[in-house]
Amino acid sequence: MNTNYEQLSDRVRNIKLRNRITPPEMTASAVKDGATLATSGMARAGYPKAFPLALADRGRAGEKLQVNLYTGASVGEELDGQLSSLHMIKRRLPYQSIRSIRGEINNRNIFFVDQHLSQTAEQVRYGYLGKIDLAVIEALAITEDGGIIPTTSVGNSPTYAREAEAAVVEINTAQPPELEGIHDIYIPGDPPFRREIPLYRTQDRIGLPYIEVPLEKIHYIIGSDVADNPYSIAVPDEVSLKIAWQLCNFLKSEIAVGRLPANLLPVQSGVGTIGNAILEGLSEFSGVEIYSEVLQDNVFKLMEEGKIVAASGCAITLSQEGQKRYLPRLSLFKDRMVLRPQEISNQPELIRRLGVIAINTAVELDLYGQINSTHYMGSELLNGIGGSGDFARNGSLSIFVTPSTIKDGAISCIVPMVTHTDHTEHDVMIIVTEEGIADLRGLSAVERAESIIDNCAAPQYRSLLREYLMEAINMSGGNRPHLLEKAYQWHLRLQETGRMFE
Amino acid sequence: MNTNYEQLSDRVRNIKLRNRITPPEMTASAVKDGATLATSGMARAGYPKAFPLALADRGRAGEKLQVNLYTGASVGEELDGQLSSLHMIKRRLPYQSIRSIRGEINNRNIFFVDQHLSQTAEQVRYGYLGKIDLAVIEALAITEDGGIIPTTSVGNSPTYAREAEAAVVEINTAQPPELEGIHDIYIPGDPPFRREIPLYRTQDRIGLPYIEVPLEKIHYIIGSDVADNPYSIAVPDEVSLKIAWQLCNFLKSEIAVGRLPANLLPVQSGVGTIGNAILEGLSEFSGVEIYSEVLQDNVFKLMEEGKIVAASGCAITLSQEGQKRYLPRLSLFKDRMVLRPQEISNQPELIRRLGVIAINTAVELDLYGQINSTHYMGSELLNGIGGSGDFARNGSLSIFVTPSTIKDGAISCIVPMVTHTDHTEHDVMIIVTEEGIADLRGLSAVERAESIIDNCAAPQYRSLLREYLMEAINMSGGNRPHLLEKAYQWHLRLQETGRMFE
Repeated sequence: MNTNYEQLSDRVRNIKLRNRITPPEMTASAVKDGATLATSGMARAGYPKAFPLALADRGRAGEKLQVNLYTGASVGEELDGQLSSLHMIKRRLPYQSIRSIRGEINNRNIFFVDQHLSQTAEQVRYGYLGKIDLAVIEALAITEDGGIIPTTSVGNSPTYAREAEAAVVEINTAQPPELEGIHDIYIPGDPPFRREIPLYRTQDRIGLPYIEVPLEKIHYIIGSDVADNPYSIAVPDEVSLKIAWQLCNFLKSEIAVGRLPANLLPVQSGVGTIGNAILEGLSEFSGVEIYSEVLQDNVFKLMEEGKIVAASGCAITLSQEGQKRYLPRLSLFKDRMVLRPQEISNQPELIRRLGVIAINTAVELDLYGQINSTHYMGSELLNGIGGSGDFARNGSLSIFVTPSTIKDGAISCIVPMVTHTDHTEHDVMIIVTEEGIADLRGLSAVERAESIIDNCAAPQYRSLLREYLMEAINMSGGNRPHLLEKAYQWHLRLQETGRMFE
Repeated sequence: MNTNYEQLSDRVRNIKLRNRITPPEMTASAVKDGATLATSGMARAGYPKAFPLALADRGRAGEKLQVNLYTGASVGEELDGQLSSLHMIKRRLPYQSIRSIRGEINNRNIFFVDQHLSQTAEQVRYGYLGKIDLAVIEALAITEDGGIIPTTSVGNSPTYAREAEAAVVEINTAQPPELEGIHDIYIPGDPPFRREIPLYRTQDRIGLPYIEVPLEKIHYIIGSDVADNPYSIAVPDEVSLKIAWQLCNFLKSEIAVGRLPANLLPVQSGVGTIGNAILEGLSEFSGVEIYSEVLQDNVFKLMEEGKIVAASGCAITLSQEGQKRYLPRLSLFKDRMVLRPQEISNQPELIRRLGVIAINTAVELDLYGQINSTHYMGSELLNGIGGSGDFARNGSLSIFVTPSTIKDGAISCIVPMVTHTDHTEHDVMIIVTEEGIADLRGLSAVERAESIIDNCAAPQYRSLLREYLMEAINMSGGNRPHLLEKAYQWHLRLQETGRMFE
């Protein structure tokens, strides 16, 4: 960490606050064992780095220190990685995505609370998640009035800063000044006196470009110059490209029958290989809007090409190349791009109002369209539900994508019964695999099963799925027949033999 | 059916429409095989009676005639009962609750589509559920301008009437004229141009007291004088009373720590024995508001006693005695009581804005708080998801209630793994049984399990649940350990022996 104090001081535009600039070590030393820290950060963007590194030093020095860590969503190695490796996290919410902390959660050394990303901020305000001792917010600068300008994500920072006992602002001079003005900070009122959230189009601005906090809440200001962990973008493989192709064909057919406008409705799409391929696919449409959580390289690329006309998200997550290419030229995008608190990017009211096309990835799905997004074999956490529930439940179209198989066909992603349900059949309209599309709208349970088997399952698993379905119909009967004694036979075989089917 | 044509004619205040008064038989004869009928009716209130009885006569006469039947939610014997018994229903959505049709659905003779009640109307407008040939709406009267005044429920009637090719208005002279003015009809715009739904308090009125349709859409007007099937209210048993007591104590403790105002937040509560007991329990609070689907006897009773100050719902479902006692005096309630389309009573935007306390019943729930509300043994449909998902996902408090056991303890309602998931652990904050309260807010998966076992399970099942949990931790590990090979052992034992535990 190479803090340039002059540069740092310049970014604290409120002169009164400049005397709160403190070395990270001293700031971190104020944290007590058992404290609850609430930090900025989402999609490994805009999270504090200097502060957790200094805190980790205390753990590394042998001090017994554990904290509860609330964030926006996933954060990088300096925070989740360091603190979890040193066993310094007691409770963690609402999402994570890196290996070291995942291991600790699956060992149950960390109490992990898996939440819909739209709900954390309001649950904090309602007092459901206890008192927050310290908010730690990565910032670009502090305004003349003491407003905190976030960096590459907003997450839950506005509520955390307001509700915490005290705040640390970590000014990251490695984040490009061009980010200023991209944020739109709005905190809804709380029941029973909440009003409408007055956002009607993707690019609407309804708040301030900074987080308002009383000056006295900012106890410390620290410096940092570490870039966000760059996101590694996998080149889409053949299966991902086929999935994207199937999906785009489906969207075109919806346009053709008049169920979607030619420029679609605002699109939510995840990160990752399939997400990238889908964004590529969207270049076949014009005038597209993105109303999503994470804005990644391809969003910027398609904006430059004029294919995407507006983008709203909660975080900018870029590859190393993307950081270099797009961040310095952000001013070219800012009139059509907004970063919002995740309570707004993921708000049911808005997703439903805008009619967002929700595209999420399934880990596995079953005959009737129940979706597992979070737990391998029903037990082992992968990342968490994230925003998938906010979007899938409220989108005008709820689409789930998955390869039909993984591990060279050893595992079918379409199984008799999912080992964990995150999205129920009531929230799943369209399934897409590289094999095809199952359009489940208006279908009964057994019709759903037939459509999924015929259109989406891998050829080598179709007859096995049909066999299960027929046996369940004959032996159990009912509206959505299942065989409880055989529901997980495929998973048990996988555990024993490494394959679902021999 | 004893139609008084003079009385009927008086209720058609638009004189031009009076020549469309037709005998039900003639109207029903216009229905073609394969047609889609969309009718009024929710919670067995306000559904057409004369029309389906006349239609049933065609089936009874041996004619081969099947229709798709879309309703608000559950309807009475004259509609679901008659048509399903005669095998005249091909496809049915979004909810049902009577025995005869349930049997046909579980025999898969009827394709049943189980939907969140807030979503059906918009899916019809989006064209996801096909063309509607005929809307059949039970009405109190037709206004001078041709507006249709609904009766004891609104359901999806506004959208059905607007979207159908043609409409039949069934004027039920047995419904009390005092219902006029209780309805508030509002259809949201559709994406991408939907605005906020401008409702901010339980009793707000945002629309018209009747359904607007072009005059030419009303092809037929028929008469009826059959009351809604009265709802039989079970006297709360000891377990239900204990559940209600536990729940009310919990709400009081939330008030005591400042997480709820003294008059609570607007309450959603279901019908049924437990629902009744809970409403009774609410008499311990003052100034309570109800924002729910169904308004039943106790809502009226507590309004008369001044305990409930405002009530919003989609249907009035009363006992025989309640029909006699409250319907003639409706004018005393109308300034504080509103009936809305179910898209509005169940709208996520509004439930979240108002901070509704959502109280729903579980059929079974598991260690980690996944909820089954719809399917016995994972296969056999009970009623459907109804509005439980709309409320549980969006309420400021999401509470699920269930007895800890049923059938004299032979069945534990708390099981290792639910056989069907309708509500995921992310949507479940509080569990209430007669044994106690599990407050799951901010807990990890294993902490949730411990809280549910210790506080909510029946004493005789606690050590068995703990045994499963410990074995799962030891054998499977992970964030939320499950044993796939034993997850349904209790259910399989029940199938074999009639008990989960010997």
